[in-house]
Amino acid sequence: MKRYDQVAQTLTQRIEQGQYRIGDRLPSVRLLCRELGVSISTVQEAYRRLEALGLVEARPRSGYYVQPRPTPNVLPKVSRPAQRPLDVSQWDQVLELVARAPQEDRLVMLGRGIPDLTAASLRPLLRQLATLHRHAAAHALNYDSLQGSLELRRQVARLADKSGCLLHPDDILVTTGCQEALSLALRTLTEPGDVVAVDSPSFYGTMQILKAQKLKALEIPTDPRTGISLEAMELALEQWPIKAIQITPTCNNPLGYTMPEARKRALVALAQRFDVAIVEDDIYGDLSYDTPRPPTLKSFDDDGRVLLCSAFSKTLVPGLRVGWMAPGRYRDQVLHMKYVSTGASATLPQLAVAEFVRHGHYERHLREMVRQYRQHRDIMIDWVTRHFPPGTGVSYPQGGFLLWIELPDSIDCVRLKERLVGEGLHITPGSLFSASGKFRHCLRLNYAAAMTPAVEAAIRRVGEAVAELMPSPA
Amino acid sequence: MKRYDQVAQTLTQRIEQGQYRIGDRLPSVRLLCRELGVSISTVQEAYRRLEALGLVEARPRSGYYVQPRPTPNVLPKVSRPAQRPLDVSQWDQVLELVARAPQEDRLVMLGRGIPDLTAASLRPLLRQLATLHRHAAAHALNYDSLQGSLELRRQVARLADKSGCLLHPDDILVTTGCQEALSLALRTLTEPGDVVAVDSPSFYGTMQILKAQKLKALEIPTDPRTGISLEAMELALEQWPIKAIQITPTCNNPLGYTMPEARKRALVALAQRFDVAIVEDDIYGDLSYDTPRPPTLKSFDDDGRVLLCSAFSKTLVPGLRVGWMAPGRYRDQVLHMKYVSTGASATLPQLAVAEFVRHGHYERHLREMVRQYRQHRDIMIDWVTRHFPPGTGVSYPQGGFLLWIELPDSIDCVRLKERLVGEGLHITPGSLFSASGKFRHCLRLNYAAAMTPAVEAAIRRVGEAVAELMPSPA
Ligand SMILES: Cc1ncc(COP(=O)(O)O)c(C=O)c1O
Ligand SMILES: Cc1ncc(COP(=O)(O)O)c(C=O)c1O
Repeated sequence: MKRYDQVAQTLTQRIEQGQYRIGDRLPSVRLLCRELGVSISTVQEAYRRLEALGLVEARPRSGYYVQPRPTPNVLPKVSRPAQRPLDVSQWDQVLELVARAPQEDRLVMLGRGIPDLTAASLRPLLRQLATLHRHAAAHALNYDSLQGSLELRRQVARLADKSGCLLHPDDILVTTGCQEALSLALRTLTEPGDVVAVDSPSFYGTMQILKAQKLKALEIPTDPRTGISLEAMELALEQWPIKAIQITPTCNNPLGYTMPEARKRALVALAQRFDVAIVEDDIYGDLSYDTPRPPTLKSFDDDGRVLLCSAFSKTLVPGLRVGWMAPGRYRDQVLHMKYVSTGASATLPQLAVAEFVRHGHYERHLREMVRQYRQHRDIMIDWVTRHFPPGTGVSYPQGGFLLWIELPDSIDCVRLKERLVGEGLHITPGSLFSASGKFRHCLRLNYAAAMTPAVEAAIRRVGEAVAELMPSPA
Repeated sequence: MKRYDQVAQTLTQRIEQGQYRIGDRLPSVRLLCRELGVSISTVQEAYRRLEALGLVEARPRSGYYVQPRPTPNVLPKVSRPAQRPLDVSQWDQVLELVARAPQEDRLVMLGRGIPDLTAASLRPLLRQLATLHRHAAAHALNYDSLQGSLELRRQVARLADKSGCLLHPDDILVTTGCQEALSLALRTLTEPGDVVAVDSPSFYGTMQILKAQKLKALEIPTDPRTGISLEAMELALEQWPIKAIQITPTCNNPLGYTMPEARKRALVALAQRFDVAIVEDDIYGDLSYDTPRPPTLKSFDDDGRVLLCSAFSKTLVPGLRVGWMAPGRYRDQVLHMKYVSTGASATLPQLAVAEFVRHGHYERHLREMVRQYRQHRDIMIDWVTRHFPPGTGVSYPQGGFLLWIELPDSIDCVRLKERLVGEGLHITPGSLFSASGKFRHCLRLNYAAAMTPAVEAAIRRVGEAVAELMPSPA
């Protein structure tokens, strides 16, 4: 074996053993020469070969990086939900997920939509929380204005620029998390019995709003790469008395896709043509792996029919419950709904987030997180591809930190979840994301936090448990 | 003039000039002897005379205190609301009140229900907020459980003991302020078009929930000393399809009364007989001037029909938005409503309040505040009696920090408010507390914060402005 082949083999082994992981920078040529006692040209040739094999990537003026394995990524299928409005069920499953505080559990939490809370770039937020009360005690403890702190609304308006929205602070309403924003929007737009069109699979929090408001969900077929089907949406608008479209078009939860810009434009045009409102959930939008981040539907909205809902729960921390919305032409009704729902939002968290954003810490934190989450996506897909049965469908997220996995129809992920909880592992079954409990053969995994060997072991165990549930070939 | 008469006159002047105020301790006999160069027996005789006149009160082993002036306290009249269910209006007035952050205004704020946020006994809460993030960062920033932090629910259950309620932490749900608790309760109990019976005047926040839910308010005549009329309530229950009774029976906002225990029992019995639920708002209950504090309606509830709603907004600080409820037999539905409304409540504020209560700071703070607010009540009633036109009706609060003032029918307090805002004074007109804008000749004043000469000047000015609006005797 040639010298450079030996070096290439050593590197390949180290990558396979997890010493260097997908997205990691590999040692410099100089360093490897010294470590392995070979010449510069030998190492250079080894790297060239690995590059040709697609195992490493050369980045100019930066070095060599471990490439994601060019896996034959089997995507989940386009969803085929029921063709009629349905009542929403699944509350018992959702309740089980949200009833316990994440920290009470000793579980490896692969299921919930929680960002990495240990990131160093979050520290200035903690400092803000610690010092604010000293400088602004009476202010920070008093009722805030109903619309929310002006300083925070200014910062939100500035950030919204980047998603193509020209918002004035007065267009913005601070809420108690994105959940309250979605709830206010849907309560303002609908009355019991009304039909709301949703993407499918769709975030369970919104589905449960439909249930509480006695609304019907019309689930629209959704492509795991491009989002909701415009053709199906148009047919549905012709056929049913739809009051609102509720959708997460950017860094979708759970599928991870971002609707292409042209399709976003077309969707807004469709809503105009049929005169329906759109409730747009953009909570993961700032975690898009593309720069600049993709535009919101709201940025194509010229008559105020899009109610944009978001929060700092996924980009910063969920426990402060700082969310916001831009309710467009529904501003006055939404403001009344906000008042009766919770009054003004908590003051201190708003001030802390406003200061954090104002000092540029938010954008710095986003850059860090996007880099981390993109790397984790590749690692997670690699692990799932290796440890799950062949043919497993896996999404290819364009942002955020959630992976959607599609198993053979016969696999029951509610049973799978119950079995795994007993072993200290937590996953979220796909059935939560459907009005009627479809997607039971799917599951959602979180890849936000450190991708430790313990997490890989957990993924391996989930894959094994899936295999155990597979019918043995007769 | 006798020596002791001169001393008595000196003291009377000082009291009238505000050097010693109602509730203040007067100088000791020994001190006065030295200051005025008179004998002990002279000072003792002077105090005896003042005591006989009802100007000072002797408290054994403590000294002499300035007595509230035995004013012929004209109470507001028993309310006589419409005898039928009404739609709720007044949102524009409420919005004006809650749209601005209190601290943005340079106004003397006499109008809003804000406690004294400068109290020294609140300091441990600030310390908790400052240090918690260090010891429990990831925990404090993550989603909490949907029901709320167990530690806080334990403390709430312990405190509820004192109002006669045996609650288990699992009976309790943490909410985003009392407003969310009230909103969840009413949304769970009713459907659009339903009738809800309320006390009258009634807290505008609840009234606006009725409006948002398209409910009808049936306002029940209410006595400013004993609360809602049981006779009228019974008639109403016979006559109308009432779904729920919503009421603030202890330290009522805005009237300040506490329903006598026997009437509370009778109200719960009535609700049982007619099988309706009661939404009990106890947000001011712990600020009762009586010890032990009066029992809640919930403490007489043996079949889970009372949904008790409260918060730390008036007893501690409003800006943290920490509220709670004990929803009785409606627990499961309320929990679903809570999830769709805001998800889990913010974590950090819950932990800070829980620690504050656990260390006994809450009870210490209450003792301080109750002493302060009771003294302020007497001072405020004295000022209003002196500076408002004769015959002005004034409530006699049994707790909390709000005074209700009834003027001649011809006085329009919405106009009064507008005039005074221009002069830097803020009051709340009574019309906010009625479904249809009644009580426009009434107003509510806050006496929580320091009773400074500036506040007395403000009260004097309000009284003058009232006089200016009085029709001149023809
Ligand atoms: C798509 C989506 N929307 C809304 C929410 C709710 O966000 P918040 O925690 O800010 O209420 C979540 C969180 O799970 C989510 O994933
Ligand atoms: C009687 C009453 N109930 C409820 C509330 C609302 O309380 P919170 O600020 O906790 O939502 C108030 C506050 O104004 C009140 O006076």
